[in-house]
Amino acid sequence: MSETNPNAGLPPKAQVQFDCHGKATGKMRNDLAVHMIKPFQEGPFEMATDEGPFHGGDATAPPPLALFVAGLTGCIMTQIRAFAKRMNVKLTDLDVKTSVVWDWEAKGRLYETAPYSFDIDVLIESDDEQDKVVALIEAAKKGCFIEQTLGRSNAIRHRLKTPDGWIDV
Amino acid sequence: MSETNPNAGLPPKAQVQFDCHGKATGKMRNDLAVHMIKPFQEGPFEMATDEGPFHGGDATAPPPLALFVAGLTGCIMTQIRAFAKRMNVKLTDLDVKTSVVWDWEAKGRLYETAPYSFDIDVLIESDDEQDKVVALIEAAKKGCFIEQTLGRSNAIRHRLKTPDGWIDV
Repeated sequence: MSETNPNAGLPPKAQVQFDCHGKATGKMRNDLAVHMIKPFQEGPFEMATDEGPFHGGDATAPPPLALFVAGLTGCIMTQIRAFAKRMNVKLTDLDVKTSVVWDWEAKGRLYETAPYSFDIDVLIESDDEQDKVVALIEAAKKGCFIEQTLGRSNAIRHRLKTPDGWIDV
Repeated sequence: MSETNPNAGLPPKAQVQFDCHGKATGKMRNDLAVHMIKPFQEGPFEMATDEGPFHGGDATAPPPLALFVAGLTGCIMTQIRAFAKRMNVKLTDLDVKTSVVWDWEAKGRLYETAPYSFDIDVLIESDDEQDKVVALIEAAKKGCFIEQTLGRSNAIRHRLKTPDGWIDV
């Protein structure tokens, strides 16, 4: 490796924090402002979600699941390119095709959902040996924040604001 | 309940599928086209991710984690509003503040990541009793595709295209 270690000068461990403030605006539209808080400040990144007429929305923005699948795809792609430099793999082109399927089940007037499958197909143009490209993808999986998040069971804390303060839900 | 069951006429179970095709374009920019494939076709929803100069990008679009956190926030908000109608809870205003933290650790020239915490604060204006609002949030958690995904350990299948066909990585 001819380059300096790109982690040189960084602390060995750090935290990365993203905050989002969503406001319900249209019938089903949400306007969302995202800030990176740690390790340094970036943003606001302004986004929106909406639903089509079938779900009572006005289709003014993509549905939330479209942002989720795009975020997952962008994350692994970013990681592949960031690590390609660090692992001396030369990419001339990169395409990724992701497919996510969920199960949906009616429960009275409501419904419940569960993830069913995640498939990520990677198309890389590179003159490097296949072993190096495979090692790059293996490393990118470990460095990808969203993949690592999906690979384990996460506890999500919910609080509701009440006149007497926040309560856990 | 005065309204007809909104699930009437739907099958008791179904699958929801979103596909994304990402293309590496700028230095770190990815252009992403998302389609809903099941239960019916919607899209393409065109999005992009990029990184700031710190990560070698041109900051032409939000980073992938911004889309992820916005998707999560939009999903639970959409679910709260969709189920409010079904559970006869009248909302006059809804704000949600989400905070997601990841751990980052240097590993030689590379790094590895892991999720650390998920916090979702819900601010609802409603004249209905607090118990009804709490029940609404409980139901929304079960109906929210992204929350249900994050709450369990998911296997992600990766394939790499080679001259001899697809291989699992």
